[in-house]
Amino acid sequence: MPHRRSAFFISDRTGITAESLGNTLLTQFDTLEFKREAIPFIDTVEKAQVVVHHIRAVAEADHLKPLVFTSIVNPEVRQVLHIDNALVVDFFDTFIGELEAELGQKASLTLGKAHGVGSEEKYDHRIEAVNFSLNHDDGVKLKDLAEADVILVGVSRSGKTPTCLYLALQYGIKAANYPLTPEDLDSPTLPKMLLPYRNKMFGLTIDPARLHHIRQERRPDSKYASLDNCHFEVNEAESMFRFHGVPFISTTHKSIEEIATTIMHKATLSRRF
Amino acid sequence: MPHRRSAFFISDRTGITAESLGNTLLTQFDTLEFKREAIPFIDTVEKAQVVVHHIRAVAEADHLKPLVFTSIVNPEVRQVLHIDNALVVDFFDTFIGELEAELGQKASLTLGKAHGVGSEEKYDHRIEAVNFSLNHDDGVKLKDLAEADVILVGVSRSGKTPTCLYLALQYGIKAANYPLTPEDLDSPTLPKMLLPYRNKMFGLTIDPARLHHIRQERRPDSKYASLDNCHFEVNEAESMFRFHGVPFISTTHKSIEEIATTIMHKATLSRRF
Repeated sequence: MPHRRSAFFISDRTGITAESLGNTLLTQFDTLEFKREAIPFIDTVEKAQVVVHHIRAVAEADHLKPLVFTSIVNPEVRQVLHIDNALVVDFFDTFIGELEAELGQKASLTLGKAHGVGSEEKYDHRIEAVNFSLNHDDGVKLKDLAEADVILVGVSRSGKTPTCLYLALQYGIKAANYPLTPEDLDSPTLPKMLLPYRNKMFGLTIDPARLHHIRQERRPDSKYASLDNCHFEVNEAESMFRFHGVPFISTTHKSIEEIATTIMHKATLSRRF
Repeated sequence: MPHRRSAFFISDRTGITAESLGNTLLTQFDTLEFKREAIPFIDTVEKAQVVVHHIRAVAEADHLKPLVFTSIVNPEVRQVLHIDNALVVDFFDTFIGELEAELGQKASLTLGKAHGVGSEEKYDHRIEAVNFSLNHDDGVKLKDLAEADVILVGVSRSGKTPTCLYLALQYGIKAANYPLTPEDLDSPTLPKMLLPYRNKMFGLTIDPARLHHIRQERRPDSKYASLDNCHFEVNEAESMFRFHGVPFISTTHKSIEEIATTIMHKATLSRRF
C-alpha cells in the first residue's frame, strides 16, 4: 500500500468547482494515489478554523503536506485556509484580481451564484426538461418528438437514457429517447414517426462486444444479449444513420459527460439556463 | 442594451471544468453581461488556430478584450491560445508547475481523465445507480429500500426525483424516492415500510407557496394544488421528520446541485466512483 497524500476540496457552497478543477489537476499525476475529501459550505471564519484544525491533524498523521484546493469568495474565510503545512491552491484568489483589473470593477463577493438557485424560472425549466425525459422514457409520442430539442436514437442499452437525463439536468435540454427495436432495424429506412424530425436526430452506437456484456447483465443468455444479435443490431443501426445522414457517435469509451458534451457541440445546442 | 463582453471557455475535452470555474469567477461581476461560448475538444494545434482566428474576429467586432478561460493539457496547444488581444485565464498552466514541484513529479499530460470514461466498471456502476432511481420512481419496493444508499422522503413535487437522478449521475449514489401520500400524512408515524430504514432517510421540504405554484402548473385548481392543502402536507411532513429525528432540508431556494451536495454532506455519503 503506497503512502497516500491527502487532497482537500474546500468551498463556501457546493464545492463542485473546486472538486472539478482540483481533480483535473490531480489526474495529471496518475501514478500517485490521493485520499480525497470534499468539504463544502465553509462560509464562516469559524467553520474555516475547524477545517484548518482537521487539515493540520491530517498533515501530521500523513507526514506529507496535504493539497488544499479552495474556491472561497469571502477574503477573511479564505485567509484562514492559507496555512503553512499544506499546499494551498486558491482558485478564486489567483484569478479574481486579474479579472477585476480587466473589467474595471470589484468582485461583488456574493456567494453561490454559479451552482446556486438562480431564478425560479431557471429551476422550473430544468425540472421540466427532466420530466420531459422521464415521461416518455418508455414510449415515445409524436408530441414529444415535436417538442424535443434533440432526439437520441439507438439500440437498447446504447446509453440513451443516462445521456438524456444528463442533458436535461446539466443543460436544460429536452432530449427525447427513441429506442430502435429489432423491427425498426429490419430495413435501413428510418422509423416512420422519426422522418419529419431527421434534423433533430442524433445517433448513439456502441461496440457490439461491450453491448453484449451490458445486456448479459440484464438478460443473461437471451437472444437479446447474444453477441450475434448485438452485432446485427449495431450494424443495422449504423447503416440507418449513414443512409439518412444522421450524425452519430460511439458511446463505448466515453463517459456520460463526454457523450453529452459531444452532442451539445455537434448538434450546436445551447444551454437553456 | 449594454455592450457585452465575450467570454470563451476552451478545453481539450468536455470543457466542464473550464466552464465551471470560469462561470464561478464571472458571477462575481453580476452587473456585467457576457456573451458566453463554450468550445470543447480543442486538442490539436490546428484546432486551436481556428479558435484563435474566431476569438480575434470577435475581439475586433466587440471592441472589447474577450475573456478566455482555458483548461488545456498539451503545452503546444495551450501556447497557441495565449494571444494578446484577449485576457487569457489558463487554469492548467497556472497551477500545474506548483503541483509538479510539491509532488516531485512531472504532469503526465494525458487527456480527459477527469470527465473521461474511467473504467467500464465505474461507468456500469453509475448506470446502475441511474437505473435504480428510474426503476422505482413510480412505486417503491421493500427490496429497493434495502438496497438504497439513501432514501429521499417528501411530499409530491418537493424535488425528490431530480435530486435522486443527480445523486446517481454525479456521485453514483443509489437514491430511493419515497413520496409521502396524503394517507401517509394522516399520522406523524413513519409509513410502516420505512421504519426499518430510518437511518437512511433524508427529508425534503419546500415552502408551501412555492409548492402551490409548482402543483398549479401540473393540475390547476385541484385540491392537490390548493394552497391550503400544500400547507397541510408540508406541515405534516415536517412534523413527521421532527418526530422521528429524520434530517431534512428545504429545497425552496436551492439548486439541484445544492440540494444534492447538502445531502451528500449531511448524510456523510461518499462518491461511489
